[in-house]
Amino acid sequence: MLSFASDYVEGAHPEVLARLVETNMEQLTGYGTDVYTLRAKEKIRKVCESPDADVYFLTGGTQTNQIAIATLLEACEGVVAAETGHINTHEAGAIEYTGHKVISLPTHLGKIDAKELEAFLSGFFFDSNNEHMIAPGMVYISYPTEYGTLYTKNELEDISRICREYKIPLYMDGARLGYGIMSDGADLSLCDIARLCDVFYIGGTKVGALCGEALVFSGSKAPKRFVTMIKRHGALLAKGRLNGIQFDALFTDDLYFRISRHAIDMAKELVRVLEEKGYEFFLESPTNQQFVILDNAKMRELSEKVEFSFWEALPKDRSVVRFATSWATDKESIDELSRVL
Amino acid sequence: MLSFASDYVEGAHPEVLARLVETNMEQLTGYGTDVYTLRAKEKIRKVCESPDADVYFLTGGTQTNQIAIATLLEACEGVVAAETGHINTHEAGAIEYTGHKVISLPTHLGKIDAKELEAFLSGFFFDSNNEHMIAPGMVYISYPTEYGTLYTKNELEDISRICREYKIPLYMDGARLGYGIMSDGADLSLCDIARLCDVFYIGGTKVGALCGEALVFSGSKAPKRFVTMIKRHGALLAKGRLNGIQFDALFTDDLYFRISRHAIDMAKELVRVLEEKGYEFFLESPTNQQFVILDNAKMRELSEKVEFSFWEALPKDRSVVRFATSWATDKESIDELSRVL
Amino acid sequence: MLSFASDYVEGAHPEVLARLVETNMEQLTGYGTDVYTLRAKEKIRKVCESPDADVYFLTGGTQTNQIAIATLLEACEGVVAAETGHINTHEAGAIEYTGHKVISLPTHLGKIDAKELEAFLSGFFFDSNNEHMIAPGMVYISYPTEYGTLYTKNELEDISRICREYKIPLYMDGARLGYGIMSDGADLSLCDIARLCDVFYIGGTKVGALCGEALVFSGSKAPKRFVTMIKRHGALLAKGRLNGIQFDALFTDDLYFRISRHAIDMAKELVRVLEEKGYEFFLESPTNQQFVILDNAKMRELSEKVEFSFWEALPKDRSVVRFATSWATDKESIDELSRVL
Amino acid sequence: MLSFASDYVEGAHPEVLARLVETNMEQLTGYGTDVYTLRAKEKIRKVCESPDADVYFLTGGTQTNQIAIATLLEACEGVVAAETGHINTHEAGAIEYTGHKVISLPTHLGKIDAKELEAFLSGFFFDSNNEHMIAPGMVYISYPTEYGTLYTKNELEDISRICREYKIPLYMDGARLGYGIMSDGADLSLCDIARLCDVFYIGGTKVGALCGEALVFSGSKAPKRFVTMIKRHGALLAKGRLNGIQFDALFTDDLYFRISRHAIDMAKELVRVLEEKGYEFFLESPTNQQFVILDNAKMRELSEKVEFSFWEALPKDRSVVRFATSWATDKESIDELSRVL
Repeated sequence: MLSFASDYVEGAHPEVLARLVETNMEQLTGYGTDVYTLRAKEKIRKVCESPDADVYFLTGGTQTNQIAIATLLEACEGVVAAETGHINTHEAGAIEYTGHKVISLPTHLGKIDAKELEAFLSGFFFDSNNEHMIAPGMVYISYPTEYGTLYTKNELEDISRICREYKIPLYMDGARLGYGIMSDGADLSLCDIARLCDVFYIGGTKVGALCGEALVFSGSKAPKRFVTMIKRHGALLAKGRLNGIQFDALFTDDLYFRISRHAIDMAKELVRVLEEKGYEFFLESPTNQQFVILDNAKMRELSEKVEFSFWEALPKDRSVVRFATSWATDKESIDELSRVL
Repeated sequence: MLSFASDYVEGAHPEVLARLVETNMEQLTGYGTDVYTLRAKEKIRKVCESPDADVYFLTGGTQTNQIAIATLLEACEGVVAAETGHINTHEAGAIEYTGHKVISLPTHLGKIDAKELEAFLSGFFFDSNNEHMIAPGMVYISYPTEYGTLYTKNELEDISRICREYKIPLYMDGARLGYGIMSDGADLSLCDIARLCDVFYIGGTKVGALCGEALVFSGSKAPKRFVTMIKRHGALLAKGRLNGIQFDALFTDDLYFRISRHAIDMAKELVRVLEEKGYEFFLESPTNQQFVILDNAKMRELSEKVEFSFWEALPKDRSVVRFATSWATDKESIDELSRVL
Repeated sequence: MLSFASDYVEGAHPEVLARLVETNMEQLTGYGTDVYTLRAKEKIRKVCESPDADVYFLTGGTQTNQIAIATLLEACEGVVAAETGHINTHEAGAIEYTGHKVISLPTHLGKIDAKELEAFLSGFFFDSNNEHMIAPGMVYISYPTEYGTLYTKNELEDISRICREYKIPLYMDGARLGYGIMSDGADLSLCDIARLCDVFYIGGTKVGALCGEALVFSGSKAPKRFVTMIKRHGALLAKGRLNGIQFDALFTDDLYFRISRHAIDMAKELVRVLEEKGYEFFLESPTNQQFVILDNAKMRELSEKVEFSFWEALPKDRSVVRFATSWATDKESIDELSRVL
Repeated sequence: MLSFASDYVEGAHPEVLARLVETNMEQLTGYGTDVYTLRAKEKIRKVCESPDADVYFLTGGTQTNQIAIATLLEACEGVVAAETGHINTHEAGAIEYTGHKVISLPTHLGKIDAKELEAFLSGFFFDSNNEHMIAPGMVYISYPTEYGTLYTKNELEDISRICREYKIPLYMDGARLGYGIMSDGADLSLCDIARLCDVFYIGGTKVGALCGEALVFSGSKAPKRFVTMIKRHGALLAKGRLNGIQFDALFTDDLYFRISRHAIDMAKELVRVLEEKGYEFFLESPTNQQFVILDNAKMRELSEKVEFSFWEALPKDRSVVRFATSWATDKESIDELSRVL
């Protein structure tokens, strides 16, 4: 059955897979010291215009968030995130497992508001009772957000300025970074992100790789003994090549950006088709995830013809569902979807 | 200077201290195995009408919350609490430190609402995505709450029923339990609490002891190897007698209840005096903590004559402050306060 | 340069990689619910003759050890291992990171001794002070061990019997399981292992896969909410297919066993060549890892012609080094090695 | 029945208790900010000749070890201790609970050997595989040791020098510090200890207090936000006065040293009596703990007349038992013991 359930229903982009095949029998050193990994790091530094950035490859998004946050926070610090932030909702308490609190701020279609952030931080740092409280030690944002929305450059600049004023790192979860950067509405480049965030990751799993995320420390160096920390989290691959080769391919000839743009083009087609058929959108998303409101009866009927994701229940027997495109979505699938809608 | 800053500005109630002095040179076994500790446990079981309850003495409130919650939660569970719950605000992330999330519900003058709790629990348990989420594994309430308010018997029965329906323990933080039970408005006895909660603690530090809290497992037995768990948290006193003797004294001749009632009587005097002088209350509290709204100028002026606690800032240069009475407050202090107000 | 440095210098076995390529564009459900993963689980249950076993795929060895041990131990329990056990030496404290102690027993060429284990367990459980001590809650062994040695069936039966007597699970780290089972000296089949151990993992990373380990609960079911636990550790792959498809291939037509046997055949050639050239062995290993003693001068000279792993320093300017074969080693490499030795 | 079971069978030294009584109704600020606590800190700085030392009061030994070690270690570091160190044996895994490994060195009557320490540290720091290993980040010693033995000044100087060379803090567990310093054989003063260690604690629970340990950072400042860290561990007393007042008393007029010396005098009497009666000692201890070897039959017989502690089983139906004196032991008890031996 046709699936728009997520952007991870296929394997790897063929060019990525081809590189794994071509290099397969080469004898390479382990644990991320191989030439492909080093080359991929160099390419990422270059495309980010961050020649001094530390880059590490990890295997999945929750793992990357967990390791980045746990190793950057100090002992009595928590991470500030939107109430709807992935780390606060759908990562099974992976942050708390490392001993740190997720401090939630109100969500605005998935985003935090700079003014509310500033009010919260100044409230904390001027509270004379704060010795009994967890200090905000980091700000987490996602781009695109869990609702497919995007921060504008102005918004990110404001958040970045506040974080630097309070001397806490700004971290961006870029599980779908490509789909954000390449969307029509976006005014943030990868270089802007590298400049305005202190740490962020470039998602591979959802953007063309079998697995893998590139964690970039653009605003400072990685914590000391970072490889040991990765190992301690059980996240150090013996065959580090698996991630390295894939990212080497993704950052060759702009593949990452090209396939991201393709997903956006397909998302625009998807929106057009849904609009034509009179579907109601839950919110306006410029990225590859589209949130649609369905009557529950309609939802059940549709689910027999096409796969999508249930998102949340609404009053009056209605639901929000998600349709996602990806690098792998083709025009034929959209046409087929159009027929079953 | 006269202090109404908190209910822990004095040492122990004289009768409690006297028992420590009388028994001082007796040779007793360690780690809570002494006769006074055993006797205190028995007295607490009796007054709770819970003959099978496990009772353990710990040294402070945050420690007791941390150990009770960390040992009762299973691996992927969090504890549900009001946004304003002490564990969610002023315990320096002690719960998250043990790897567990505090899941917050809206606060209603410090209390959670049974309907909102039920909606949250049913929402979680019927969410097909819940494999990626922390499960609610316990409900935390405080009595009195952090705002001095009280659950009614009806309210507690509702919450208790919901917890049992969803098979998760109900835990009550009773740091000031005596001041709740003995207040004019209260319709919950210690036996009601033991019956409706699965676990709770009877606060000593703020109600007559130098230190010490009695953790009561009234709805089930304590986790296996509980003494080892206490030790692992660094909370097992070699001289367990310190807590045991104090609780033995507090539960002799209703001392705990008598001194709690005294604090309530003094709080009523305090309210009378404050009202006479035209002070505005932030909310209506039937217990020993009273929250008053002051202009910041007035607050500064008053703070030179009497100690109280700053609570939170309000708009327009106003603040909430707290005045607390305790077992140690006497009529003379209230009179003196009246003169400086 | 020719490398015998480890059994993870190449990518995946060609048949494994081919399956990834063939299935690449199929739309599959995420998080290990896809058909290939289910099929691989079924094949493993079958080859283990454990029709009720729970099987989960994880990505690396340290991750698998960490999750298996942390989720099976109770709160005040530690895991017993040989002093030289991988979890006690080269996993960067991944077990302690989860709050649990590794309790070490003496090593006998990498193995623990059943009698010493029994003495330790009986010593603990009959110690009246044990309330202040970490309880042994699991036994960890590796097969082959970190020194390439193997438990005999008799030895494993003894250890298994003791564990069951004391009611603690026996866990086997099978990072190189195939190379153990298929070695000349081995008298333990995969079924024996499934029967005598309660939990074990079948290593993929070092035996033909790009990544991936199959964790098998043969003696009991996996802990409740195990997928959530995996997620909480940051170890749940969105594209679970990556591990599932590889194990499906490895357990088709005995591929796992055939390629393991090939590595053993190559190891025998390696031993023959080393012996011919008069090299001294540190110990006798029947598996794919061979430990050789070299003068440091010789070690430096050799390291310019072939890659191997430094293992440990010996007195008098001598060192132990490791040569490893794998599924990927061919006769030509051995011949070439023979020329440079 | 007469008890020599431990040095914590009585309450507090009468002068300590008297201070608690005298100050009981004074209104004091909470959480360790009261005047008595500040004064006690100042007295300790003075007697240690460490005017810049940070001093904090905690409630028990395991708690103090846990907090000191967990807050001083960095993320991938463990603490080095003798195999018999209290943290490695009888603290219920409290260190591992905080995520850190206890790395054990051989024990020499409870002590570590400086040469072995140096060999271990240099071995680690020169191991090129150490990225996969826990780094030694601290050295833990106890004074007196768990076997009542003492480091000489030479020995401590050697260990201190090695720690400073490798830039890792030296931490001393001084649960019975007074009984060490005041013993006949000791050549280490409190000032020597403050100078040679970076952190240590002066035990109160076993030396005259109801509870309480003074943690002294003599070689550097306490970690940032240390009060918050104490709170996060559940170890911050609302009535910080409880510890502060006791230590103020203990360090007034050399009380701590006088009562410690008394325990040593009584221990010498104890040894004399035991020797007279022909008892065999397990080892020679110059401090307040004496370890005696008994036939098990004799042990059972004796245990009906006097309390002592079982320590460990020996071959041939014999056992090691411990007799302890304390500040509270009087000549009459020794005489009475003499009659029952």
